[in-house]
Amino acid sequence: MTNNIIAQRLEQLREVLRRERLAAFIFPSTDAHQSEYVADHWKGREWISGFNGSAGTAVVTLDSAALWTDSRYFLAAEEQLRGTEFQLMKLKIEGTPTIAEWLNAQLTIQNSQFTEVGIDGMCFSAADTEALVAELRQQGGLTLRTNFDPLRQIWRDRPSIPLAPIEIQPSELAGESCASKLQRIRQALREQHADGMLVSALDDIAWTLNLRGRDVHCTPVFVAYLLLSTTSATLYINKEKLSPEVSAYLKENHIDVDDYQNVKQGLKDYFEYNILLDPSETSYTLMKAAEREVVRQESPIPSLKIVKNEAEIRGYHEAMLRDGVAMVRFLKWLETTMESPTTETEMSIDRKLTSLRAEQPLYRDLSFDTIAGYEAHGAIVHYEATPDTDIPLQPHGLLLLDSGAQYQDGTTDITRTIALGPVSAEQRHIYTLVLKGHIALSRAVFPERTTGTQLDVLARQFMWREGLNYLHGTGHGVGSYLSVHEGPHQFRMEWKPQPLVAGMTITCEPGIYLAGRFGVRIENTMLIVPASEEAFFPVEDRPRYLRLEPLTLCPIDKRPIDQSMLTPEERQWLNSYHQTVYDRLAPRLNADEQQWLRQATLPI
Amino acid sequence: MTNNIIAQRLEQLREVLRRERLAAFIFPSTDAHQSEYVADHWKGREWISGFNGSAGTAVVTLDSAALWTDSRYFLAAEEQLRGTEFQLMKLKIEGTPTIAEWLNAQLTIQNSQFTEVGIDGMCFSAADTEALVAELRQQGGLTLRTNFDPLRQIWRDRPSIPLAPIEIQPSELAGESCASKLQRIRQALREQHADGMLVSALDDIAWTLNLRGRDVHCTPVFVAYLLLSTTSATLYINKEKLSPEVSAYLKENHIDVDDYQNVKQGLKDYFEYNILLDPSETSYTLMKAAEREVVRQESPIPSLKIVKNEAEIRGYHEAMLRDGVAMVRFLKWLETTMESPTTETEMSIDRKLTSLRAEQPLYRDLSFDTIAGYEAHGAIVHYEATPDTDIPLQPHGLLLLDSGAQYQDGTTDITRTIALGPVSAEQRHIYTLVLKGHIALSRAVFPERTTGTQLDVLARQFMWREGLNYLHGTGHGVGSYLSVHEGPHQFRMEWKPQPLVAGMTITCEPGIYLAGRFGVRIENTMLIVPASEEAFFPVEDRPRYLRLEPLTLCPIDKRPIDQSMLTPEERQWLNSYHQTVYDRLAPRLNADEQQWLRQATLPI
Repeated sequence: MTNNIIAQRLEQLREVLRRERLAAFIFPSTDAHQSEYVADHWKGREWISGFNGSAGTAVVTLDSAALWTDSRYFLAAEEQLRGTEFQLMKLKIEGTPTIAEWLNAQLTIQNSQFTEVGIDGMCFSAADTEALVAELRQQGGLTLRTNFDPLRQIWRDRPSIPLAPIEIQPSELAGESCASKLQRIRQALREQHADGMLVSALDDIAWTLNLRGRDVHCTPVFVAYLLLSTTSATLYINKEKLSPEVSAYLKENHIDVDDYQNVKQGLKDYFEYNILLDPSETSYTLMKAAEREVVRQESPIPSLKIVKNEAEIRGYHEAMLRDGVAMVRFLKWLETTMESPTTETEMSIDRKLTSLRAEQPLYRDLSFDTIAGYEAHGAIVHYEATPDTDIPLQPHGLLLLDSGAQYQDGTTDITRTIALGPVSAEQRHIYTLVLKGHIALSRAVFPERTTGTQLDVLARQFMWREGLNYLHGTGHGVGSYLSVHEGPHQFRMEWKPQPLVAGMTITCEPGIYLAGRFGVRIENTMLIVPASEEAFFPVEDRPRYLRLEPLTLCPIDKRPIDQSMLTPEERQWLNSYHQTVYDRLAPRLNADEQQWLRQATLPI
Repeated sequence: MTNNIIAQRLEQLREVLRRERLAAFIFPSTDAHQSEYVADHWKGREWISGFNGSAGTAVVTLDSAALWTDSRYFLAAEEQLRGTEFQLMKLKIEGTPTIAEWLNAQLTIQNSQFTEVGIDGMCFSAADTEALVAELRQQGGLTLRTNFDPLRQIWRDRPSIPLAPIEIQPSELAGESCASKLQRIRQALREQHADGMLVSALDDIAWTLNLRGRDVHCTPVFVAYLLLSTTSATLYINKEKLSPEVSAYLKENHIDVDDYQNVKQGLKDYFEYNILLDPSETSYTLMKAAEREVVRQESPIPSLKIVKNEAEIRGYHEAMLRDGVAMVRFLKWLETTMESPTTETEMSIDRKLTSLRAEQPLYRDLSFDTIAGYEAHGAIVHYEATPDTDIPLQPHGLLLLDSGAQYQDGTTDITRTIALGPVSAEQRHIYTLVLKGHIALSRAVFPERTTGTQLDVLARQFMWREGLNYLHGTGHGVGSYLSVHEGPHQFRMEWKPQPLVAGMTITCEPGIYLAGRFGVRIENTMLIVPASEEAFFPVEDRPRYLRLEPLTLCPIDKRPIDQSMLTPEERQWLNSYHQTVYDRLAPRLNADEQQWLRQATLPI
């Protein structure tokens, strides 16, 4: 994308804005379903700004343009916006104005004749829209227009909403029938005093119906809405996507089918007394369309979906074995490759790793775009190498490699930071600080219903002592052949009230990023399991205790460790984890691979 | 208090209830100012139930009675309620009904002809009352009457509202003038879009005006309300309490004085546009009395009060030196005493410790009733020995001693668990688990604005690993010659959003309680200070880092430590703390005392 193209698009947009008497337009990163990753049809923010991160909001006035994103993307956005009109706005950094504050300042400077700001109300959640309306009103009395999308006029080659086929997730992998899930959702709705709900979140729809699609890059969902009442369920979807088999399955489960475009009418026609609409999940336009009494509460589905059943847990274990085999083959290959002069680059090793994963049974896709960042690129938290940024690997320093796959029986997410040769004393020190945090959280034992906010410090305590921190969360849920980011539970500095219970997945991924130099992150996907109770003292009213069990099976590079910084307990955890990795993976490896893994997992 | 007396009082109450056609009456633990500790006038819950803990709610129907309290008081309440009609309800324990649920069940069983429940609206906060109204309505459609206090008819020797004299806190101790505080409060009110507020919290009034009183046991406050507008301030107080000096001081500071009983009329007459009333602090009756637009928000005063200024910090350091001298003299005396047969008891050592504190300059009072619990009594979290429960000390096992004082320059709060002779292996193990938690939190370094909820796990992590926990918070703020419990910041498992900043005080007091056997708690009062930044790596956008500095100066008993459980860093913290204790206290001790302290603080 050249800066010239961005300039042309901005000019086209401004013509429309002037015609529509709009002072500005706001482009979010999301779609009509509040997805984190979206189909190309909804990549309007990327089209107008050139910035392709998964989180960011572009705002364009008649004379200026800016893009807000979070710390994961500061360096990537700086790179991608360079030379365009877009000014980078760093979220959560002191002094960064809010969108409304910036708009008010800009329109005052520009002495704008217009005071109305536009958004596409289908792609903004009701909660975000209402907050924006209130803030714009405070900021110089600006108003919001929500029923207009300039992209329809100016984005001529806009991709259409995808039509990829849908498949049924087999019951031996899903572990619970669609009928049972619908019953549990309806029970939860009754408890929230609602008789129905509109499900907009694509992964919640896929989970509920035990269906998977291919509409969104790296996420096996399909574009649809699901409207539930006490007695009926209607799937709003382009019918072309439904094979006879899937149509029959839906019929069998008493799921009616209607056209995707009819969801608004479906909401207007909803016949029961009240309907739950989650203001964070439901678009502003659809929230306004509901004519019954609206119960504005959190959707009950995520809390059901994130507690995995036995079949799903079995699936994760199977998928992790295959993912571990691919990772071990990759790491062995990389080690050999780096021993002699090589032309391998960040992008080429990504291709290699992906091809090794693709060889595995039940492989369907990556679960997100691989982050392969060598040295300074490793400090860009969500770096994705492009032909412009790609650099060759050299036989020294650190490679940060964050990757994952979608297997039909489980989603994986793993980060390893790998020494490609000698590393500096500082790299050793930083690597070991991150490892200590990773181990401390991995070793935690905690009462049931503890929150991720309470535990987050365990991963940060050692680096905080040296004035270092990372501004992303420490962990997120991982779907069962679904979204690689699944909430609402998280390990995070911010308050996340969702209590942790056995059966949830969650990543453990502390990191340290020294801008312009290198980055370290070490991540396993974990399962929350009951802690052994053998060693416990008897006390009254004792709750159940939980611990984290690594699902990920792959050695953690021992070469960059400063062993003098580890306690005996930390060594023991690492050695015991490595023993498990060897025991589980070795039977699936050939003799050479076994030998490599034996070395990689020898006790320290 | 005999059970017979309680039975008589219940019968008198029920006569009144029948006459007033009330199904039940609820007695809270608080007063008309939502205080934690209250003047005797407001101890209606204790009068009706016999339970004297600082937190608890009694509910009496025509046929039954129950008392809700939290885990700190489970054992004490069980003891005190034994033989009365009152059933103990354990808060936060699964299966415990809410008051409304219990009332509904009781009134259904009793087939009650009445459906109205009574409270004294002056002694219930607006927030609690509104929540209660909503819950009673859900529970069988019960309603609430808020304008009636049966104690006026049946509590014949009820103490009147106290009239203790008021004194001015000298500016060299307060560190900020009343005028400056009023200016900062009014600035904060403007930011909250309010032009005035009613201050009900007694410690907030005392802090704002730099006045101290003696109306409440262990807390140097005085009963009053303070009504602020943009230009005026009115203190509602019994004028008998004001000496000519204090009256002149108030006049000088433009504080009008009106009778305590006139506050309701004052609210009605409030002349500006709107008024901030904190729903958690303001009584339901006064909330209803306000006729202007009410800004229902948190009071801005606690957030100002909890960040101590230099004079206050200097005061804490001075007070802690004196408190440390008293503690060292006590511990030395106790050690000697336990070496030969003794008749000392929990109560007698409390008197000894209090007398040693009272010898110190600027001593005014205890800051709470001493908890001296020997062996099994140590497991009762808020145990207070009475002639009925008092037991002699024996030369073995653990004594839990939680105590503190009010000095004019600072409030203290310290817990030590002391070996009176040989202790069991289990006691050593538990003691060391608590000590490890105490040290881990004490050693924490964290970014400014971290919350206490994020850090709490540091104190619990080791005991959680063994299935042990404590159900109280890990720490609370401590006032500057004010309330020993000062918020809203806390170290706590529950979410407490108040961000931590330098200048706050906070205790660090993990514990483990094995019912019927023994209890361990180790507590220092800490000051939050900037962390040294010398060892920090340079990173972008770095926040300020903070750490905890112990204010308390007193050795931690080394004899019950299982040294094999401590890491080198933990030993180093303990040794370094003990070195500080010795260095600071030794100059104030005689040679014998110095020698004792030298032994008690020798490195391990």
